[in-house]
Order: sequence, then C-alpha cells, then structure tokens
Amino acid sequence: MPSDATTGKPSLMSVDDALAAILAGLQPTAAETRPIATALGYRLAADLTACLTLPPQAVSAMDGYAVRAADVGTLPVELTRIGESAAGHPWTGTVGAGAAVRVFTGAAIPDGADTIAIQEDVDPAPETDGVTITVRAVEPPGRYIRPAGLDVTAGTVILEAGQLMSARAIGLAVAAGLTEVNVHRKPRIGILSTGDELVSPGHRPGPGQIISSNASFLCAFVESCGAIPVDLGIAPDRPGALLDAIRRAPGLDQAPLDLIVTSGGASVGTHDHVIDDITGEAQHGASGVNFWKIAMRPGKPLISGYIDKIPLIGLPGNPVSTAVCAMVFLRPALAHLAGGSDSSPCFAMPLGSDLDENDQRQDYIRAVIIEKQGLHTVQPAPRQDSSMMSVLTGATVLIVRPPFDPARKAGAMVRVMPIPPLT
Amino acid sequence: MPSDATTGKPSLMSVDDALAAILAGLQPTAAETRPIATALGYRLAADLTACLTLPPQAVSAMDGYAVRAADVGTLPVELTRIGESAAGHPWTGTVGAGAAVRVFTGAAIPDGADTIAIQEDVDPAPETDGVTITVRAVEPPGRYIRPAGLDVTAGTVILEAGQLMSARAIGLAVAAGLTEVNVHRKPRIGILSTGDELVSPGHRPGPGQIISSNASFLCAFVESCGAIPVDLGIAPDRPGALLDAIRRAPGLDQAPLDLIVTSGGASVGTHDHVIDDITGEAQHGASGVNFWKIAMRPGKPLISGYIDKIPLIGLPGNPVSTAVCAMVFLRPALAHLAGGSDSSPCFAMPLGSDLDENDQRQDYIRAVIIEKQGLHTVQPAPRQDSSMMSVLTGATVLIVRPPFDPARKAGAMVRVMPIPPLT
Repeated sequence: MPSDATTGKPSLMSVDDALAAILAGLQPTAAETRPIATALGYRLAADLTACLTLPPQAVSAMDGYAVRAADVGTLPVELTRIGESAAGHPWTGTVGAGAAVRVFTGAAIPDGADTIAIQEDVDPAPETDGVTITVRAVEPPGRYIRPAGLDVTAGTVILEAGQLMSARAIGLAVAAGLTEVNVHRKPRIGILSTGDELVSPGHRPGPGQIISSNASFLCAFVESCGAIPVDLGIAPDRPGALLDAIRRAPGLDQAPLDLIVTSGGASVGTHDHVIDDITGEAQHGASGVNFWKIAMRPGKPLISGYIDKIPLIGLPGNPVSTAVCAMVFLRPALAHLAGGSDSSPCFAMPLGSDLDENDQRQDYIRAVIIEKQGLHTVQPAPRQDSSMMSVLTGATVLIVRPPFDPARKAGAMVRVMPIPPLT
Repeated sequence: MPSDATTGKPSLMSVDDALAAILAGLQPTAAETRPIATALGYRLAADLTACLTLPPQAVSAMDGYAVRAADVGTLPVELTRIGESAAGHPWTGTVGAGAAVRVFTGAAIPDGADTIAIQEDVDPAPETDGVTITVRAVEPPGRYIRPAGLDVTAGTVILEAGQLMSARAIGLAVAAGLTEVNVHRKPRIGILSTGDELVSPGHRPGPGQIISSNASFLCAFVESCGAIPVDLGIAPDRPGALLDAIRRAPGLDQAPLDLIVTSGGASVGTHDHVIDDITGEAQHGASGVNFWKIAMRPGKPLISGYIDKIPLIGLPGNPVSTAVCAMVFLRPALAHLAGGSDSSPCFAMPLGSDLDENDQRQDYIRAVIIEKQGLHTVQPAPRQDSSMMSVLTGATVLIVRPPFDPARKAGAMVRVMPIPPLT
C-alpha cells in the first residue's frame, strides 16, 4: 500500500492507478463460435474478414438513367431508353452512343455508362424501352455512382478483435457474407453481499436490519454489461463466512466463475472480515489481496485480489458507493474479461450551478442534463449523500471532478460521464 | 401529404412532426407482474410505492462514536464507552451524560446521542466497553447522521409509471421492500425486408444480388432496445408479397405483433410495392398508410401506417438510412410501445473540422469523439455515403445539423446524439 513519507499514513490511490491494477489481473475468457444472429453484446476474439465485396459492382445511388458522359456534353439532349436495371435485376448489355438505361437506387450500373441523370432532371417518360427521353441536366461522371468495394472489400478486415458486436456490426458482418463469429464467451460473475444487517429480499427486516439490495443492483448491472451474474447470497460478518459462501456455491465446478464481486466488508471497521478471510488463505498461494483507499468520492475503500485463483473485486457497501464503483471499476473489468475495453465517451458540458472547491478525492457527482432554449447544462443534485439511491437512480450523468479542482461557477465546463440507461 | 403551394411538389416533413405522428398511432402494451429480479429493461406500468423507510432509523454515516453535544462543548474531553452499535446489531440503551457509544457506518444512532465524533478524531482506544476515550474534535450535531427516511419514505412513490427498470431502479426498489413490479410486457416487433435483390444470410448472392442484412441489424437493434424481434423474412418486389409475408408468418395468432417494421420498398420507384400493398387493403378499414418524404439525411422516404390493425413503420432500404431512421424513429417508438419515452441525452460539443452549409434536410453525420489533452471534439467521418455501413459501424455519435444550418468552422458547438454501444 502506498504511504505518505511525511505522515506515515497510507496515502490515497488514484482512480486511474487502481483501475489499471485491477485490469492487469484479469484474463479474457475463452473463445467460442456463435451464429451471428445470437452475437449481440459479445466481443470478437479475432479480426473479422469480409467474404464479399460491397457493393459487388458499381451501383446507382439514385433513381434515374445511366448514360454516357460523351452523349450529354450539350443539354438538353434526347436519348433512347434501351433497358432497365433494377436492384436484383441487372441489365447485362452495354450502353452505346445515344442510349440510356433506366436505373433505380442500388441497381448495377451497366457497362458503357459512367454518368447518372437523376429522374428529376429527365422529362417524365413512360416506363418502357424504346421511348425517347429528354435529359435536361446530368451529374458529373461518377457522381451518384457507388464504385465496387466502396463499403467493404472481400478479404479485408472489417471488424477488429475486441470489437463489441453491436446491431450495426452484426448488420455489416452479415452484409459481408459472415454467418458465424468467433467471440469470447460471456464472463460469469459471482456476486456476494456481506453484512449482519442484511436480510434477503422478500424478508421483513428486524431492528437494525435492512434488505440486501446491492446484490440485486449488481446482478442487474452485470447483466446490463453483457455478463452472467451468479448470486452467491449473503455472508455474515464472521471470519470464514466469505470463503464458505464462495466454496459452497452450487454448480461452480461445472461452470467456474471468472470474477467474484463483493459488496460491504471492505472498510477498516472491526466487523469487516473480507480482507482477513482472503489473507488468511494467502499461504496456500491461490489467494491474495490488495486493500486500497482510493482517492474518490463516493467509494473510498476498495479491495482487489484473488481467492482460489479467481479474481475478486471488493466494493464498498453503501449502495451509491457500490453503484458508482461498479461504473468506474466493474464496467471496464467486465469489458476486459469479455475481450475488449470499455469506451463510454465522456464529454465536457457547462455547469448549471456553482460547485465548491474539491478536496483530494476525485468526485463523481450525481447530476442531470437540462435543456433550456437549445442550451444543455449539467445540474448537480442538491444532496450527494452516498446512501441515497433515490438520487443516483434519478441521475442521468456523473460529473467527474479531479482531485483539488478549484471552485467552479455556473457556466464553467466540467467533465461528464453519461450513465447508460440500463445501469 | 403536405405540399408546397408554389410548386405543387410534395414538401418535406420535419423529423419532429413525423416522429410525433408515429408515436400518436402507438398504444403501450398490456401490463404484467414480474419478479423484480427479472425486470431489467422493462418499464413500469404504474407508480411504484415504497414499502419501507430508508434508512429505517437515524444511522451513522461514518465509523466513530455517538455522543451528546452537551458533553463535547469543551475539547478535548474524556467519555466512557458504554456500548457498541454495528450494522445489524443496534445498541438499544440510551446515551447519558459522559457516555459514548461506538458506532460503525450504517449502524443505528442510539437514543440520547445527537453528535458523531469520527474515529480519526478520537485517540486510539481498545474495542471494549467501560474504557475511557479521549475525544479531540467532533462534528456539528446531525453531521454524519443520516435521519430516518433520508433516502425513501414508506408509502411514497419512488419510481413513476413509464420509468425504465435500470440496475439502479432495481436496487432502489429492492431496498424499499418491493419483490415484484407491474410492467408493460415486451413489445413484439415483426421485421420484414423487401427487395428482389436480397438473398438470405448463408446463401451466395448471384449477379445483381446482395445479402439481406437490414433484418439482421433490425432484429439486433430491437433486442438491444428491450423488445422482441420476429423475423418475417424477405418479401420480393411484387404486388401482395408484403401482405403474404405478414399474414402467413407462423405463430402470430398466439402472440400477435405490436408493430411491423419494413425496410426497403419505401421509395417512389416503380418496383416499390409496400405502399400499394397497404393502400390496396384500405377499403377493409383495418389498413391505411401515410407516405412521407422527411427532411432528413440519410433516410428521406418513410412510411407510417397500419396493416390488419397492426401499426407499421416503413424504413428506407439503404443500410445506413435504415439504421439512422431506426435510431431516430424506431427507438422512440419502441420506448413508447413499452410504456415510456426515449430519453437519450443529446449534448453540444465543439467540431473537430469545418462543415459546409446544410440544405433543407436535417443531417445526421456519422462522427467520432476525439480527446486531445483533455479537450473533446467531434470529428465527422470523411465520407458520408448512405450505403457505407462500415463508416456507421465505426461511429460513436451522430452530429445532428438542423435544416439550413450555415457553414460551421472547427471549434463551433454542434448538437451531438450518442449512439448507444449496442446499437
């Protein structure tokens, strides 16, 4: 644990350093081959190479007539319609002098033609071959013609290893002739709550008790990130309870966990046994732990380690701290396990109200985006207590304030991290 | 259809007007009761009322000692530790003069105490009752004490009808004592591709043919929006094919569709039969159609209507037009069918390069966010052809340019619509 040379107290670790250390301890899951129609949310385990060229030949980008540039140097000009090329019904002849071929969007451009007259620039004409059409204007050669391979060339990489299979990526891969993809299997994430104060959902809490809700949040969070949650239940605040819960979970010999996530028990209070449980096992070589105080708010205490060779992330127990640490650390960890990296775009936005100066902890302020007359500002929630899930649930973004950020006035630009709707 | 009084030509309809008209024709699906653990991505059909108050009593926000303000007017002061209140193990006595109770984060504040001395402000003391502790500093009364009901009050609404059940909402509802929720069932969306040029995935395209990929995109898109896709296959370009595909789809009598989405066949080309198919049925009263040219790029032609009483949205067939129209029209339509409204936040961001002036169509420019030395800018892709799925797949945002927007220099603020990672 890093410590401050002057005071000897453990110093706070930066969010970036903690995240890098967590990711360094995680290996992506094994690869599997899946039908592409079931690949939404998976990440590619290898580059994906196109089987087909798109478009396969030059096609029209508009409805109109395919003509020869040599014939339309002087306008207006009369040409003879000699055929029609529609999507799926190419015209296979060659366009000679004085000829035009009716074309529709997506249809192959016939040999000999190099220019499109869009239909708005041609006098209305019957849809029959042999008629004379009058062209009043044309586009420059090549304009409104999509050359073969404009989008995709067969044999080239269209999607790289690690890429998330989005709906767009699936559409692109299908168009390029793929039917299955090599992806990392979904990570399986064990979720364990700790604390004597917790009762399971559906039970009535007694004096001093509360319902265990962090596991419900974390299971849904893991699912929303495309991984598989495995609820390991509640471990009470006694030595060994954490190990028991993990080792006695049914079915784990058939389908091992890729990561264990705990909530609570990560502070330095007398009743926090998570660290003791893991370090007590360290002599067997399959377990180990780092405990960090992170320079962030909410969510100072964080555990990173492994137990029986399974990586473990120990989140703080306050619901808001749990949730914010899940967004900051667990989401990138899940993306890494799934073979990729998290790439939620942050952006800058003007503040809607003043903020005091910040201390040494990176602050994640619950906020909403407000639009007034086309101007977007970000408005911090009036109360930021780390127990208030109602405030976090109503937030749409987090304002990320670096350590020691000076006081900011309304209108100042701040860094904003969007909260995905399903988070 | 609106038309321009001067030219008689149909005028272009605005995106907002078209979207409002589409939403006006859609009814939310029926409600059902689900266990809360399976509610991720559903929308509430009724307000959700808390069963419990959170916290149920005043609790400590820190590890430390609960004391009486009257005892700590002069500091330092020595007090006698008379008990301990931990999460799940409240101390049930009353704190009298000269006494202190050890408290941990989340633990009940005992009667009589109104002030927290955090443990950093108390000289290190054994964790046993009866010892004398020395308090060097305290917080003002109430500071670091979370009053009962700070987060949630039993009997009050914590989540409103229409709210998306996010991981956070699930955590909040579980904490408030809920075990099941009343939500709208997932909408079932029929996906139909049209066009003679299309062959199914897994088949080799012949001359002039391409693989049908819009249905693959749309099925994944619908799934990513929390609805259920039903692939209705490919309808060729002949009269009646659309009706056949919809009416002969297996299983629809048991599980009817809530919406039909077509792609292609929505232009005014000779081979586009979607409109004719629907209007041909209009005399039976269960079908009808509006065809709009929307002032947007990509994606001008759009159909809105209903067939056999099922609402229908007809998207253009260019893959990029299909996808952008799905983001602009279909995503809000799916949210509306599911009982809520789409609320993806847009924001303003400085341009990374110059943009020419815009014409009468609202432009959705494929772009990426670039960060350089902490400054975020949005960089338009160099080529914007509406057939290029590779460009759209690589984009992370769309720049939304209003009609007739003047030329913009790099650095000018533009409106940005994020593309969700799974889209």
